[in-house]
Amino acid sequence: MKQSQLFTKTQKFAPKDEQARNAQLLIRAGYIHKEMAGAYALLPLGIRSIEKIKQIVRQEMNRSGANELLMTGLQKKELWDATGRWDDKIVDVWFKSELKSGAEVGFGWSHEEPICDMMKSHIASFRDLPVYVYQFQTKLRNELRAKSGMMRGREFVMKDMYSFARDEQEHEAFYQECINAYSMIFEELGISEDTFVTFATGGAFTEFSHEFQTICDAGEDTIYINREKNIAINEEVLTQNTLKKLGVKKEELEKVRTAETGNIFNFGTEKSETLGLYYTDESGQKLPVWMGSYGIGITRILGVLVEKFADDKGIVLPENIAPFRVHLINIGKEDEADRLYKKMLEKNIDVLWDDRNLRPGEKFADSDLIGIPNRIVISDKSIEAGGVELKKRTESSSKILSDSQLIKRLTKEI
Amino acid sequence: MKQSQLFTKTQKFAPKDEQARNAQLLIRAGYIHKEMAGAYALLPLGIRSIEKIKQIVRQEMNRSGANELLMTGLQKKELWDATGRWDDKIVDVWFKSELKSGAEVGFGWSHEEPICDMMKSHIASFRDLPVYVYQFQTKLRNELRAKSGMMRGREFVMKDMYSFARDEQEHEAFYQECINAYSMIFEELGISEDTFVTFATGGAFTEFSHEFQTICDAGEDTIYINREKNIAINEEVLTQNTLKKLGVKKEELEKVRTAETGNIFNFGTEKSETLGLYYTDESGQKLPVWMGSYGIGITRILGVLVEKFADDKGIVLPENIAPFRVHLINIGKEDEADRLYKKMLEKNIDVLWDDRNLRPGEKFADSDLIGIPNRIVISDKSIEAGGVELKKRTESSSKILSDSQLIKRLTKEI
Repeated sequence: MKQSQLFTKTQKFAPKDEQARNAQLLIRAGYIHKEMAGAYALLPLGIRSIEKIKQIVRQEMNRSGANELLMTGLQKKELWDATGRWDDKIVDVWFKSELKSGAEVGFGWSHEEPICDMMKSHIASFRDLPVYVYQFQTKLRNELRAKSGMMRGREFVMKDMYSFARDEQEHEAFYQECINAYSMIFEELGISEDTFVTFATGGAFTEFSHEFQTICDAGEDTIYINREKNIAINEEVLTQNTLKKLGVKKEELEKVRTAETGNIFNFGTEKSETLGLYYTDESGQKLPVWMGSYGIGITRILGVLVEKFADDKGIVLPENIAPFRVHLINIGKEDEADRLYKKMLEKNIDVLWDDRNLRPGEKFADSDLIGIPNRIVISDKSIEAGGVELKKRTESSSKILSDSQLIKRLTKEI
Repeated sequence: MKQSQLFTKTQKFAPKDEQARNAQLLIRAGYIHKEMAGAYALLPLGIRSIEKIKQIVRQEMNRSGANELLMTGLQKKELWDATGRWDDKIVDVWFKSELKSGAEVGFGWSHEEPICDMMKSHIASFRDLPVYVYQFQTKLRNELRAKSGMMRGREFVMKDMYSFARDEQEHEAFYQECINAYSMIFEELGISEDTFVTFATGGAFTEFSHEFQTICDAGEDTIYINREKNIAINEEVLTQNTLKKLGVKKEELEKVRTAETGNIFNFGTEKSETLGLYYTDESGQKLPVWMGSYGIGITRILGVLVEKFADDKGIVLPENIAPFRVHLINIGKEDEADRLYKKMLEKNIDVLWDDRNLRPGEKFADSDLIGIPNRIVISDKSIEAGGVELKKRTESSSKILSDSQLIKRLTKEI
């Protein structure tokens, strides 16, 4: 894409009321626009990065055999009344409104109830199980405080997956498979080393749930980790009992600030029994379905990546998440840049060409702020030296490559 | 995909409260789930078809130079107060709620105001214009009646594009280009012959707006058309004055029932002046930006296609919209089917294999209900006759092809 065709302009300052560093940088670089606290529009750069994160997650979800769907935002009261979760005293993040008929409606802050209810149309027999489904859903949560930018939104994108199994054994097998799939995802997102499967508060059926917590100073959680033993415990369940169960001493644990990037939860048969999701087994017996839920905070992850990797010049993103892989900048030499740009497009290299008539310093500052991983400069100087100058966003030194060396390098790395 | 992996089951009956034929069929075939009147979840088959429609639209939008973005659902009152459209007496489809702080918020039924306001951060000079942006947005509208299934939702997906231009001339040029882009889209959707650029109610700046109206008995609009002269007039503007201007007599017009599948609207500088979107021209003069909006009803189009093409056996969809292009059905012969299925996947043929252990009649009935365009049957009979049986959903006769003939044919048609 040519940068002259990109309508967003970088900005020297973020809005005064924006306190979160991730949102400040994402606004200044033109990834997002702040509509109100905790609600950000995704501008072209932002939508590109979010789609790339979604695609990484989607691939792993599909690999696990899950079907993609998309539930509605509008929620009917009856369903949530049945589980006691319509009550604002129980769930304090509801946005609610009224249909013209006067009936109350809610806006989806979670989709556990409607997905469980919907499955009653599709699950009747043991032959219909197991079932795994997932969605990328825009959740609405009426948060009292929304000061963490993309890391805690009133409106945000979440991937939520749900499993429906015959029994505990089938449930557990998928639960473990999902932990593996999530580990793959965090690997691809470039934060696997700092992300820990963490013991956290459970529910009616299990003592613990599992959270995926990523070390991040701007996070809202505190966990205790032991890197060698690969143990992590959310401080909310850090009791003598927990320590004993996991065979670890408090002194062996390191206290770290984290952001919850994923979580997995075992409902057992509780929700199915309440909402009436049963199946008939081989012997004709009616049994409640085992249900689990598995979330990943898609927009939050973009916030976490910005918080973790940004430097004083701006955003730094991994190659597979940045809105473009390559930022082509010409200083003069329009024809040469145009030729190289077209060659890259032919090779399907994901390139943004800064073809604007600006001073080199402005182009470089914009490039650092936006944080595209590979910066290619074509100028009199680079041509004299034998080609184009390649500089990684994460490195300070650059090197000169010929056009064909460059193309070879960039196509190899895909 | 193997049908045994698809969690949805076809259903003999639609919910009793569902009156619209499109929704009845889409529910029975497993494309959608009714959450409440006018709000349908997209199940795997539905999400596939909707994504295909979006992709057709996205390609044309990108070709026109527009940038994709995604505004928020949450809307702030101040902005809509400024244009007088927060008032429920002026706009009667708002869903509204309250932030914890007590401030009122709305849910996006339209995004004209926030997009115009957002552009103030990115448009300052004549050098920044023109700008074209679009989004696929889930709109929420508190409709009094929502009885038309996917054709009028309380929650539905719309593609809305917006143009920002220096002056009337620049605006008009894009407006015409958009009419052409939309015509291409309706061509690809297979409904161009029945879709008419229709004169409709204008606004403060123009006598008329333009709607894209598609002939459809279940539609909610009435228009008058002359196919030879390629003229179409919404009955709401069918006056002597309009007839005179368009050089057509009422007797020459045919009255048809239609669904509004797209619309384009010229705001002139009205909204920009109200919300303060100005630019500085070459001479340093401050001028308001010309704005236009261009919508296409994405989920409505799926409803229209079902209404128009379905037969008494079920859904019929064009090759490029159906959730899969090919439905492979085996009667016995699992190994042969498995081999052919893998060969198709290798060739990137979009295939659903009904690998379930059901009677042939059940498989055929499901296939007709779902409406995949090409049905391939592999059975003792077909193998004896020389290969597999290919039947188009729209034809009653079938033909026998060898595997390689079949693959050749299906890859050619992509």
